[in-house]
Amino acid sequence: MPKLLALALVTLALPELAAHSPAEGRGDEAIEAILRAQQTAWNEGNLAKFLEGYWNSPELTFAGSDGIVRGYDGLLERYHRSYPDRKAMGTLEFSGLEVRPLGADAALVLGHWHLTRTIGDAGGVFSLVFRRFPTGWRIIHDHTSAQKQTP
Amino acid sequence: MPKLLALALVTLALPELAAHSPAEGRGDEAIEAILRAQQTAWNEGNLAKFLEGYWNSPELTFAGSDGIVRGYDGLLERYHRSYPDRKAMGTLEFSGLEVRPLGADAALVLGHWHLTRTIGDAGGVFSLVFRRFPTGWRIIHDHTSAQKQTP
Repeated sequence: MPKLLALALVTLALPELAAHSPAEGRGDEAIEAILRAQQTAWNEGNLAKFLEGYWNSPELTFAGSDGIVRGYDGLLERYHRSYPDRKAMGTLEFSGLEVRPLGADAALVLGHWHLTRTIGDAGGVFSLVFRRFPTGWRIIHDHTSAQKQTP
Repeated sequence: MPKLLALALVTLALPELAAHSPAEGRGDEAIEAILRAQQTAWNEGNLAKFLEGYWNSPELTFAGSDGIVRGYDGLLERYHRSYPDRKAMGTLEFSGLEVRPLGADAALVLGHWHLTRTIGDAGGVFSLVFRRFPTGWRIIHDHTSAQKQTP
């Protein structure tokens, strides 16, 4: 596509984009920054720092094939149990992030996770519910699935 | 506990309960009614009616161990594929429902699902994101996990 035409299309599209994502209202960037920070913390082997993206509350919930885990401490314990060392943690990559606003102070985020590991890769999809607190956006619920192993 | 004391405690608790769940604002009852209707439809073998609890949109999403399924039609197809007959469907029971409001027009619902079946039971947990539309509350995202088989 000629550069000038592409620029014209971008310019035409801007008012609508602006209407759908006011800088303050949606929080996409803030949420994506939190997920990037989580990825970095994971890849440094720092689970406590990874957990900082979550709401520090006994009401935090995490759902998966083990059922429902409750509370920040419960979730930290779960991560330590499932990922006891760097080998188990591997290298985390999030991809295909979709941020869907749910009113002004909540958002649903879908995405894929992948762990590259010497002991065998793992991956799947997650659904995160974020809420906006005075201190910023935090995950209040995480539902994570592992992809079925294809034989 | 003596009945009178129990009654007194219930009465004392009422104002606080009312403050946290104004009849109009939270939609708990409307949401629970939709889930009950889904359970009934499933147990009648009526997948199309079961789907009525979902947002009829190509933007509807369903996440699980197969990844992300998109759109109302895609989800109906997935249910037909995964549950081709009454034997596969069995008898559905939802339990342990928790409705958590996310602003005025959205809610997160956690719960357990169980299928009683002659070919082997199945079950697990789900996370539903509901939105309130002019036509009522609908599921806009469903993340469902099957419980790990314990050996």
